[in-house]
Amino acid sequence: MSDLSRFIIPRGFRFGAAKAGLKASGRPDFALIAADAPASAAAAFTSNRVVAAPVIVGREHLSASGCRVRVVAVNAGNANCAAGQPGMDAARATCAAAARIFGCPTEQVIPCSTGIIGVPLPAEKLIGVMPSVAASLGCESDRFLEAAQAILTTDTVEKTAFARLEVADANGQPGEVRIAAFCKGSGMIYPQLAPHATMLVYIFTDAAIEPAVLDGYLQPAIELSFNRISVDGDTSTNDTVLLLASGASGVSIGAGNSAFGAALKQVCTSLARQIVADGEGITHVVELQIAGAATDTDALLVARTIAHSPLVKTAWAGADPNWGRLAAAIGRSGAQIDPNAFDISFGEHPICRNGGRAAEFDEAAAHAYVAQPEFSISIDLHQGTGSCVFWTTDLTTEYVHINADYSS
Amino acid sequence: MSDLSRFIIPRGFRFGAAKAGLKASGRPDFALIAADAPASAAAAFTSNRVVAAPVIVGREHLSASGCRVRVVAVNAGNANCAAGQPGMDAARATCAAAARIFGCPTEQVIPCSTGIIGVPLPAEKLIGVMPSVAASLGCESDRFLEAAQAILTTDTVEKTAFARLEVADANGQPGEVRIAAFCKGSGMIYPQLAPHATMLVYIFTDAAIEPAVLDGYLQPAIELSFNRISVDGDTSTNDTVLLLASGASGVSIGAGNSAFGAALKQVCTSLARQIVADGEGITHVVELQIAGAATDTDALLVARTIAHSPLVKTAWAGADPNWGRLAAAIGRSGAQIDPNAFDISFGEHPICRNGGRAAEFDEAAAHAYVAQPEFSISIDLHQGTGSCVFWTTDLTTEYVHINADYSS
Repeated sequence: MSDLSRFIIPRGFRFGAAKAGLKASGRPDFALIAADAPASAAAAFTSNRVVAAPVIVGREHLSASGCRVRVVAVNAGNANCAAGQPGMDAARATCAAAARIFGCPTEQVIPCSTGIIGVPLPAEKLIGVMPSVAASLGCESDRFLEAAQAILTTDTVEKTAFARLEVADANGQPGEVRIAAFCKGSGMIYPQLAPHATMLVYIFTDAAIEPAVLDGYLQPAIELSFNRISVDGDTSTNDTVLLLASGASGVSIGAGNSAFGAALKQVCTSLARQIVADGEGITHVVELQIAGAATDTDALLVARTIAHSPLVKTAWAGADPNWGRLAAAIGRSGAQIDPNAFDISFGEHPICRNGGRAAEFDEAAAHAYVAQPEFSISIDLHQGTGSCVFWTTDLTTEYVHINADYSS
Repeated sequence: MSDLSRFIIPRGFRFGAAKAGLKASGRPDFALIAADAPASAAAAFTSNRVVAAPVIVGREHLSASGCRVRVVAVNAGNANCAAGQPGMDAARATCAAAARIFGCPTEQVIPCSTGIIGVPLPAEKLIGVMPSVAASLGCESDRFLEAAQAILTTDTVEKTAFARLEVADANGQPGEVRIAAFCKGSGMIYPQLAPHATMLVYIFTDAAIEPAVLDGYLQPAIELSFNRISVDGDTSTNDTVLLLASGASGVSIGAGNSAFGAALKQVCTSLARQIVADGEGITHVVELQIAGAATDTDALLVARTIAHSPLVKTAWAGADPNWGRLAAAIGRSGAQIDPNAFDISFGEHPICRNGGRAAEFDEAAAHAYVAQPEFSISIDLHQGTGSCVFWTTDLTTEYVHINADYSS
């Protein structure tokens, strides 16, 4: 992949990773990303009201810097959450150390953490390895992948996505722009204590985009990707999505560039689906296609209720074509429905029509369909034009093992 | 128990059960309850918008009869839900047959069903056994228990509660009143197809109470009992709570009788806790005590979010004193919180103080505490005076087995 670096990695960024000693496995657990010059930034953080120290500090820094970022410092192995003042001090010390090394204001450094909760981050471990990581940064795809791997916890595979596109710039001139991203999700490095999988997403582009415009691209892309997935319905205290634009391509992009917006959505959707596919203990990935809802909000209500129903998710684990559980979830979703007017299909198989079993219902065929590792379920509520697509997983005994096994 | 009948079973009701052939096990699956004269009724049904045919018919009948009930006909083995017009016809035919036998208007008959979804109820099986059941009805506690057992599905034990109290009647005269109740919950007779456990609750009293007054006692009792439990967060299509007052004690009770209200709440709370304790695959019953919330609604938001968190529930299954998952659930609940101001205790063990690990935190002691089959978790949000008590369960591999095993 190395030889492709000059085509796929956005210009203006350098990447690196190291072993700071936070992961019990001894694997790399610290990633550093530096922009050659302050990059435009757009971000989204968890909606959880219990937020980790790095999320608090990251928000402060973006506000203080006017959304300009030089350095991102990410550690796995410790979420630095619910750790009081020592946790805040650790996040600030990490940023201060990076600012000294890179000669930038502290507020241009964004800290991120994932791992065990309730224990202050040993910042000295990160600060100790920082000089050597900083010296080893590179713009090659190998460095990029090392950073993508260092932030993983119980993820089984690194998650990356790339886009390279020819676009018309703000003046209508053609130019080449790259987007590259990596993320982690679904893992726990200390299952006996960690709160739950944290999603961390880093997206880089070498387009030149002002922060406010960048945010206008990021938020809708998030809404259709990361906000449309669920493994277990538990919202993390540390979730972070960070999009940085270096401008190093020399291609300036204003608002309303549909090609750039589409490429960003594609990258975000790819990462979101990779997170679901690597969900804890899962054996099935399910795409929910909700249509005919009174509103898009209603469509999401239905999708989320289905995605969080233990009875639906366990049926999927058993490749059980049980549509009654889906009907019950639709009914309790809070969405406007007519119990005699909704249809359900599994892929192309009609299952339920007008709220009752479809005449063509073929249990054996339906069972074979939902026995596949990936399948789709389409629901038409016949109430309007609201719709959504949502990705989720089954709930298996392995999920319970991963999260219940207590070793003390 | 038989010899106690004349003390504990409310006067004015007769009970019976039979094998109608709906349960694959061949066990009794049909219960009939008759009031000697039309009883005052108060009821509550599922909030699910997909509702079973018997729920629709039951609501219609209560409305048409002015909340007067002579007969309740309950079957297990078929939920008669999402079964279209044949399902409605089956529910009505069952009521019509009972009305003929008991010589009452059809609208004084309430039908109830629990079991497989999506298949019309074979009403002829119920109608076939109805004459012999009607002929065998009795007011002894044996008959009462037979009815309580016939409505079970995968419940492992029948669930009953009794109260007998001396009260001042509406004219201030002392009198003796009885309350007896049975219910089912958490079971599935066809785990491969049934939607989920349906809760059916029947409460009888021989007090003389007008329907509107009766409803005034029932709804607050429900709010503090059945609306405060969750096994898996899935709201059934068939849930029904029915309270009948025969008046056969000769003791008339008006509104505001605190002794009667307290006894009814006690009966409802007892049944609710029995349902949780018999939850599918559970190994721990957890009492959540939320205090210091800005409002009671906020307290319930916190309790429900915790009760429905797969990560919290799997930690309990592993006797894992992981409080980080609780903190994360508190944070995402939507309730007003201060992340630096909430406390968590496991029983008498301080776990978290001011949003961080308590100085006295003793992991071994906390682990031993949550390894018990029943334990309590207290959370103080320090935001106001809102509070609630809520009962829930852990989430085990056995739960997944029960609901995932597909046998076709």
